[in-house]
Amino acid sequence: MGTVPLLSDDELSAEARAVFAEIRAARGTDYINNFWRALAHDPATLRATWDRLGAVMAPGALDPLTKEMLYIAVSTANGCSYCIHSHTAAAKAKGMTPAQHGELLAVIGMAMQTNGLVTGLQVEVDEVFKA
Amino acid sequence: MGTVPLLSDDELSAEARAVFAEIRAARGTDYINNFWRALAHDPATLRATWDRLGAVMAPGALDPLTKEMLYIAVSTANGCSYCIHSHTAAAKAKGMTPAQHGELLAVIGMAMQTNGLVTGLQVEVDEVFKA
Amino acid sequence: MGTVPLLSDDELSAEARAVFAEIRAARGTDYINNFWRALAHDPATLRATWDRLGAVMAPGALDPLTKEMLYIAVSTANGCSYCIHSHTAAAKAKGMTPAQHGELLAVIGMAMQTNGLVTGLQVEVDEVFKA
Amino acid sequence: MGTVPLLSDDELSAEARAVFAEIRAARGTDYINNFWRALAHDPATLRATWDRLGAVMAPGALDPLTKEMLYIAVSTANGCSYCIHSHTAAAKAKGMTPAQHGELLAVIGMAMQTNGLVTGLQVEVDEVFKA
Amino acid sequence: MGTVPLLSDDELSAEARAVFAEIRAARGTDYINNFWRALAHDPATLRATWDRLGAVMAPGALDPLTKEMLYIAVSTANGCSYCIHSHTAAAKAKGMTPAQHGELLAVIGMAMQTNGLVTGLQVEVDEVFKA
Amino acid sequence: MGTVPLLSDDELSAEARAVFAEIRAARGTDYINNFWRALAHDPATLRATWDRLGAVMAPGALDPLTKEMLYIAVSTANGCSYCIHSHTAAAKAKGMTPAQHGELLAVIGMAMQTNGLVTGLQVEVDEVFKA
Repeated sequence: MGTVPLLSDDELSAEARAVFAEIRAARGTDYINNFWRALAHDPATLRATWDRLGAVMAPGALDPLTKEMLYIAVSTANGCSYCIHSHTAAAKAKGMTPAQHGELLAVIGMAMQTNGLVTGLQVEVDEVFKA
Repeated sequence: MGTVPLLSDDELSAEARAVFAEIRAARGTDYINNFWRALAHDPATLRATWDRLGAVMAPGALDPLTKEMLYIAVSTANGCSYCIHSHTAAAKAKGMTPAQHGELLAVIGMAMQTNGLVTGLQVEVDEVFKA
Repeated sequence: MGTVPLLSDDELSAEARAVFAEIRAARGTDYINNFWRALAHDPATLRATWDRLGAVMAPGALDPLTKEMLYIAVSTANGCSYCIHSHTAAAKAKGMTPAQHGELLAVIGMAMQTNGLVTGLQVEVDEVFKA
Repeated sequence: MGTVPLLSDDELSAEARAVFAEIRAARGTDYINNFWRALAHDPATLRATWDRLGAVMAPGALDPLTKEMLYIAVSTANGCSYCIHSHTAAAKAKGMTPAQHGELLAVIGMAMQTNGLVTGLQVEVDEVFKA
Repeated sequence: MGTVPLLSDDELSAEARAVFAEIRAARGTDYINNFWRALAHDPATLRATWDRLGAVMAPGALDPLTKEMLYIAVSTANGCSYCIHSHTAAAKAKGMTPAQHGELLAVIGMAMQTNGLVTGLQVEVDEVFKA
Repeated sequence: MGTVPLLSDDELSAEARAVFAEIRAARGTDYINNFWRALAHDPATLRATWDRLGAVMAPGALDPLTKEMLYIAVSTANGCSYCIHSHTAAAKAKGMTPAQHGELLAVIGMAMQTNGLVTGLQVEVDEVFKA
């Protein structure tokens, strides 16, 4: 169990209830995942997170599947188990194939490895790389 | 300066020299960036890293630009300054637009934020997310 | 289960037993949480950790609740689940309200987000910020 | 230099210009620090970050100085140099004394240490700590 | 459960089957741990990881037990629970004593602590430390 | 420059002066590196850190060079540039050869890579690995 209990629909403030309604409408399902039920203790952060997430993950210069994979990459480097599970599920729902999943993980592993080598060597940034 | 000096072309072992020749051929430029000059102190790791990097970053189920952006995402979460600079330069060379760069950073920031919220709340993984 | 078994009271060295007695006296409870039972395998580290923790977390220029919240902030960024649970419980015991908990998490999330943006942008430190 | 050039006032979009005006008004100074000049390349993220930062860091259940210290704690665990510098400067401007700064760092160091011990021991969470 | 199901021997591709045979021969046991069963979804990464791991962890200028302890140190700083468990078990199998385990954890904890202090203080690197 | 100025010998408190004398005696050099000059602002943390560091890094079940390499491994995973530089210099002073340095970095890179793969796959810990 988490550091706060998960709120059931009956325990929501009016503000949280409104956000849950938007989540359900946007996703076309009645299911609300645990993150939102935990975050509902703080309706202002719930509202801000849901709103900003919608804007950031919407189709734009990058497509939604690419954005989900980037999310997985960051969450993996940060070791956020819940985030990896939820965004891997979201990526699969958006069409991520097993081959794409495999390559995603291979890139993450490669980046982790060279991050470690570069950092241990304390390599200085080449002038040509600076904007 | 790093924890090892950067090796000039004159200081390379035969094995490292061979890898540098491959880097130059693959990239179509004589310029070798500092990472490889630092890694050349250990020719076996230089060889293994260059070979694996080529395999991982090649076009496949994911395109090379997407892979560079994933690399940036991991490197940012790990705080590897050199890696961020070098892979941002590589992504721009592969066509990353300012709009894509902006969205990439927005996704990274959003993921970092919800990683923090989820972790602080210690949200348990929903059953539906498990493979 | 951990990488070492948790030691019961019967399995303690004399040095560890003395530390456990101090923990019980300081906290006014017989309950010893798992961290100390695991750490008891190394009595020198158990002693040093307990002594230093007491000095660092004591009231001083910062009050004990603020210190617990700082502990949660660091533990969240590091993804230490046990630490988040134990220090969130400690903070609540020291009076952290749900509103304070919510704001603590909002600050953590915000800091994580701008950490990611700043790092991805590789922003140079303004001269005015240097001591 | 960063992965994007810092924008001067002359290079701002109208949307970024409006945010800069709010920053100047809120802070009572004409100086805009580098983070905002880098973020100005993406006016939507600039706007969202500035708005949310204002809400999160405002006085509430926690006072602004405590929030700045929490920000420093997260930024330190994440190794974000720019963030540490800018929020340490902000904390000093809000009255953080050298003694408070010293205790803040001592708590961060202590938390980092026990995070490492707990994680290396893989201590299981006590039932009593769960919400 | 993970983000992919663990593959049983019956579900392996020919390439993965060959790697599993090598793992069994190298370790003198029929048991294949979960990491390899998860990685088997991507035979190319399975092959590359197994081959490189063998080369890196082989006796050389550093002995295999020292390498396992270094592995634990990195995995602890990264918070990789599975990695800590598997490499602690491997280190014990290679002769790590309880006293060595205790000192390993004490060094990890100390390093974490001074990492936090140094980073919070933003100490500049002494000229004498540069290679 | 850091978040605090480096203290010169003339600016030290009596308590910090005593620690500096011990550092000089223990190391047989008059040179005090920047970490201690920054930490001297908080004499209690200076004293505790110096005392504990001496105990932890002393020869014991692990030799001092192994401990320095473990320190580098943790500091690299945490991205603490100063710590990597200072402990790499210390390891070299204690006899770390270029071949050992190369293998150390290769292990760090390998561990980072499999940390990423394991975390992205969310592999469950095998029962056989639990203590």
